Amino acid sequence: MSLNTFGHLFRITTWGESHGPALGATVDGCPPGVPLEPEQIQHWMEARKPGRSKHTTQRREADEVEILSGTFEGVTTGTPIQLMIRNTDQRSKDYGDIAEKFRPGHADITYWQKYGVRDYRGGGRSSARETAARVAAGGVARAALGQLLPNLRITGYMTAMGPLDIDRDRFDWEEIARNDFWCPDPVAAQAFGDHLDWLRRDDHNSVGAIVECVARGLPPGLGAPVYGKLDTDLAAAMMSINAVKGVEVGEGMQAARLTGRDNADEISMGPGGPVYSSNHAGGILGGISTGQDVVVRFAVKPTSSILSERRTITKAGEDTTIVTRGRHDPCVGIRAVPVAEAMMACVLLDHLLLHRGQVGDGGGRIG
Amino acid sequence: MSLNTFGHLFRITTWGESHGPALGATVDGCPPGVPLEPEQIQHWMEARKPGRSKHTTQRREADEVEILSGTFEGVTTGTPIQLMIRNTDQRSKDYGDIAEKFRPGHADITYWQKYGVRDYRGGGRSSARETAARVAAGGVARAALGQLLPNLRITGYMTAMGPLDIDRDRFDWEEIARNDFWCPDPVAAQAFGDHLDWLRRDDHNSVGAIVECVARGLPPGLGAPVYGKLDTDLAAAMMSINAVKGVEVGEGMQAARLTGRDNADEISMGPGGPVYSSNHAGGILGGISTGQDVVVRFAVKPTSSILSERRTITKAGEDTTIVTRGRHDPCVGIRAVPVAEAMMACVLLDHLLLHRGQVGDGGGRIG
Amino acid sequence: MSLNTFGHLFRITTWGESHGPALGATVDGCPPGVPLEPEQIQHWMEARKPGRSKHTTQRREADEVEILSGTFEGVTTGTPIQLMIRNTDQRSKDYGDIAEKFRPGHADITYWQKYGVRDYRGGGRSSARETAARVAAGGVARAALGQLLPNLRITGYMTAMGPLDIDRDRFDWEEIARNDFWCPDPVAAQAFGDHLDWLRRDDHNSVGAIVECVARGLPPGLGAPVYGKLDTDLAAAMMSINAVKGVEVGEGMQAARLTGRDNADEISMGPGGPVYSSNHAGGILGGISTGQDVVVRFAVKPTSSILSERRTITKAGEDTTIVTRGRHDPCVGIRAVPVAEAMMACVLLDHLLLHRGQVGDGGGRIG
Amino acid sequence: MSLNTFGHLFRITTWGESHGPALGATVDGCPPGVPLEPEQIQHWMEARKPGRSKHTTQRREADEVEILSGTFEGVTTGTPIQLMIRNTDQRSKDYGDIAEKFRPGHADITYWQKYGVRDYRGGGRSSARETAARVAAGGVARAALGQLLPNLRITGYMTAMGPLDIDRDRFDWEEIARNDFWCPDPVAAQAFGDHLDWLRRDDHNSVGAIVECVARGLPPGLGAPVYGKLDTDLAAAMMSINAVKGVEVGEGMQAARLTGRDNADEISMGPGGPVYSSNHAGGILGGISTGQDVVVRFAVKPTSSILSERRTITKAGEDTTIVTRGRHDPCVGIRAVPVAEAMMACVLLDHLLLHRGQVGDGGGRIG
Repeated sequence: MSLNTFGHLFRITTWGESHGPALGATVDGCPPGVPLEPEQIQHWMEARKPGRSKHTTQRREADEVEILSGTFEGVTTGTPIQLMIRNTDQRSKDYGDIAEKFRPGHADITYWQKYGVRDYRGGGRSSARETAARVAAGGVARAALGQLLPNLRITGYMTAMGPLDIDRDRFDWEEIARNDFWCPDPVAAQAFGDHLDWLRRDDHNSVGAIVECVARGLPPGLGAPVYGKLDTDLAAAMMSINAVKGVEVGEGMQAARLTGRDNADEISMGPGGPVYSSNHAGGILGGISTGQDVVVRFAVKPTSSILSERRTITKAGEDTTIVTRGRHDPCVGIRAVPVAEAMMACVLLDHLLLHRGQVGDGGGRIG
Repeated sequence: MSLNTFGHLFRITTWGESHGPALGATVDGCPPGVPLEPEQIQHWMEARKPGRSKHTTQRREADEVEILSGTFEGVTTGTPIQLMIRNTDQRSKDYGDIAEKFRPGHADITYWQKYGVRDYRGGGRSSARETAARVAAGGVARAALGQLLPNLRITGYMTAMGPLDIDRDRFDWEEIARNDFWCPDPVAAQAFGDHLDWLRRDDHNSVGAIVECVARGLPPGLGAPVYGKLDTDLAAAMMSINAVKGVEVGEGMQAARLTGRDNADEISMGPGGPVYSSNHAGGILGGISTGQDVVVRFAVKPTSSILSERRTITKAGEDTTIVTRGRHDPCVGIRAVPVAEAMMACVLLDHLLLHRGQVGDGGGRIG
Repeated sequence: MSLNTFGHLFRITTWGESHGPALGATVDGCPPGVPLEPEQIQHWMEARKPGRSKHTTQRREADEVEILSGTFEGVTTGTPIQLMIRNTDQRSKDYGDIAEKFRPGHADITYWQKYGVRDYRGGGRSSARETAARVAAGGVARAALGQLLPNLRITGYMTAMGPLDIDRDRFDWEEIARNDFWCPDPVAAQAFGDHLDWLRRDDHNSVGAIVECVARGLPPGLGAPVYGKLDTDLAAAMMSINAVKGVEVGEGMQAARLTGRDNADEISMGPGGPVYSSNHAGGILGGISTGQDVVVRFAVKPTSSILSERRTITKAGEDTTIVTRGRHDPCVGIRAVPVAEAMMACVLLDHLLLHRGQVGDGGGRIG
Repeated sequence: MSLNTFGHLFRITTWGESHGPALGATVDGCPPGVPLEPEQIQHWMEARKPGRSKHTTQRREADEVEILSGTFEGVTTGTPIQLMIRNTDQRSKDYGDIAEKFRPGHADITYWQKYGVRDYRGGGRSSARETAARVAAGGVARAALGQLLPNLRITGYMTAMGPLDIDRDRFDWEEIARNDFWCPDPVAAQAFGDHLDWLRRDDHNSVGAIVECVARGLPPGLGAPVYGKLDTDLAAAMMSINAVKGVEVGEGMQAARLTGRDNADEISMGPGGPVYSSNHAGGILGGISTGQDVVVRFAVKPTSSILSERRTITKAGEDTTIVTRGRHDPCVGIRAVPVAEAMMACVLLDHLLLHRGQVGDGGGRIG
């Protein structure tokens, strides 16, 4: 049952609303004996924090994570880890408008239709604020992965914003953390910034983006066919993030355009095992990792909370219009980058544990 | 735990290998009292059957489904439904080559690396033959949906093959069942056929495709945020199908290119409830159905089993080359269409039951 | 996966250690629209609270429950409900003895052997303190049941302590809340008190007990054969409570002594449906409720934390002895009563939702 | 979701009705590389087979198990294992009586009330015939345990029938397989036989029984607190077996009668690790195995299908009487013994895999 829980053996349950007293993640299944201090989690929280630049929402949240359970003397004990983040900047204001009107393109209307009650303040449970809990849980996953797979690197970045794409020839891993967009291409980062300034200030608009996330150093053999495949779980993980409308692995949608001859990643024998001529597969074959980079990509739609007027209806069923004021991300893709990394960390740890349970140290040798 | 099981309340567990004695699906959670005869399931099996045209594998399988449990006097009883399909055309042949060599782009190598043992005959469990069991299970889901949502229509079709796309202006629902490609555009269907003839015969190659699947008539309110969202489960369902590398809902990856103003599906009040000016969302907001058409799309990569020689290695770790002879689909996207419909039926029934359990007849009214 | 999570659709995940900063329950799957205020939960917490009488541990805890999420304007929203209880009376003391020595009959040794690390303070996660979170979650279940099944009554009570049994002829429902033992027989309650005074003060010993829990007003048809049967889930729920060593439904272990003729609850037709001549079955046949009282009973072993010296070993593997001082319940059965009620409430609500999801309003009529 | 599925990582889903064409078990999560031939499973099927002596039902079933998937060249592959057993002795007869009348003490009435449709032939899904599939699945678990824990021994036996108990002083492991009752006491076995002859022939009655099951050779550390405890899962496993009304671990219900001083299993250091002075705990502390014998016990009620007339009602709601003719077990406890062993094997393998996944080779050393 994955209603508010994600994962098989490493399981996160996130809870909390945008404007409630707190939110957090209940993390079950973290292996015992992993060093875990709040600072480690805080490190990842900083990346997702609102108000980090002018390009994200100006809501101010310390996003301070308290570890309420599951560790003892700085080490995980194998029991559930409760991570709590107090909300501190729920502005007291008049919510009348969004309480009665539905924002087009927002979950306002469907939450109402489903539940018949909704916490409209800041979007309630459907707010991107929920992803803070994911990043916290991802921090735990990272800590465990740090022990189990010390060479693993998980890195997310933006490759497109609206009509603008990065140039892969300028791809620079070091650049990613240097700009406000987690963008590996400094030229594109500049263009992203200019475009977003214009959209926000002049066009009263928002824009979509593409985020890519890569795991380097994953061993072959992870993934549980046929419904718990590694790519299936990664697709679910990413699609569950707010505003995501498409997910790709390796070539993704472009795989439709290729022939079998072009798409085949040819194999030869290297000193440390199989070596591939290319990575169209994105590191996953038959739902199982090949040992190459695992490459996942997803599209984030533009936020529906914009200053431009759109036609909509009220709860009472009357036609009206709406303009969403308040603090909103003009490009939610930016803050989706650390969330993607966190979800990837959770999936990879989960599959590592699952593989260990199912197969142990087994698996086939080559050569 | 979703290893070989998919679903929350309506759960399918598929089993069986390409060249074993049989394969099938254990279907748990079908509501009681649903009329279900083998013929109903057989109807859907025909669509996926190999050898239906010259464009698919020439393996001959009756794909006859036996219902071994869960029905009584032609009606479901609420107990598990076992659907078994005997394999009848597992050709006795020398498997030496694929037993020792790994096909580039195929799950041969990862299954070996994971499990240390594999049924290499026809790809074993990683064969697309597994999807026959999904279609059978989908037949059960369709029967139940027929009772619970008699106006629901689930329709899949191909929108692209390699470089060729359909023209949406020629979209004709009636055309879909008329050609070998489940293609709604008769002109594109003709082009698909010509292209595939050339690829198979002259180029010894294969090609990818894009499949779209639409559900019309779904009520608003289905979907279980935030990890069992309707789109999350649809993404998982589609990504779990062999060869799928990307999944989209509504605008999909193109959502990245849009602005908030353009992407907003404006709402007005119609006689029967909310009416939307467009459907960029693909019928899902915040993971919950809006009542519009639910639109899912995915890309299928070209099969790796081609007559062209590719470089690879042996289990012993020696460099070599491989040419895959035998009966393979040059475009696996064709037979993925009924599989997509089946998976969508399973997801929609599952969420209908889940919603009924969680919320009952509740939910909010508009107007 | 039921590691720290219990339930199918109504799911509770408890977290927290005896001497950590807090503990609680993450409650997922509560239906929307249920009125829920902290006071309602607090009401049930009082019953389990330590230090309620001289017969329970003298640890002082306010056991105040904060609702951190999942409600809005006093009503549940269908999203996860986080219930947090701050620990306030974790006495700062020297834990040296139980840090190095294992208490015989206690989970000290197995937690160590399993995890290689343990929070020994107050038993950590294996402490009965964890059950506070269950009672809080049970309060949510009660609130939802109050709406869905207003006539349902769940009542637990003690029927035996050590060698002393209640006399069923003196059974008085009103008496249960009047004494310190939740005992329906006032004479037995007096005897329990005298016995426990002697055990604690003079014998430096502890004692086991039998707790019974009855649900009156449950409709027929709840239970999900064959592995999610109502009695299976009740057995799991009760066996998961600390110190429980046996669980019975209806006749329980005595069923072995009966003949088929005696055990059959004969049926006749009453004005409101089937009427049974007896209830040997404890209200459950084939894992499904009959509509009679559901009767569950379990035995709680005596606590291993006693002032009498017992032989044991240290972590270093040396033979030694141990005397457990500190604040412990001489009869944990007393405080197990509200825990049993809470677990029963969770199971019943869960099965009510599950049934609604699977079967809807269906089911067979009689007459 | 454990509707018709049991287990966390090693998962069995049983399917099939008493008088349908076949029944079986879908086994998911068996580790790869385990030698598995049908004969190994058949070995365990023989023990449960009906008609093995005059004391069990005279239905004749070959109970031949076909392995339809999941093995290759006699070895498991890590994919789902489908085990099918054809029903061969569903006697064609007039079911009119049980189709219209409900047997008191039988699931006839609750299945009807829940589902509104039921396969009344032989009890359909609620028949003890379902346990054949459990024994088959248990055969797979035994095969895997044979590799992973070669010294593990799982042995079930009957300790009581109606008023008759074994004498523990005459307990002889070798005797268990020698008599018709899996009874470790030859004198009691004789008495069981005489009693049952009289009950069946002269009294037209049936009787309950107590079954005990012991696992010897289990390492410490297995069990997943606090809701997937080893004893919790064993209790669920046993309570899910038809006709079981009570489950005990170690002292079981008698634990209520003991004092803490008596109940404590004192610990000393032996050459191979901790040694316990007694085993009141039944090998489980805090839900985790201690390394001692794991001892589970359960009571089976007398079957409700007897030749004596009982009062009941019809589906139409009319008062009537019923006498159940046909082939029934006068003491279902006998054939419950191999079922108990099978369920225990499934639980232990499951927890072994779970522990391996969660903790790996970790865990604390003593000494």
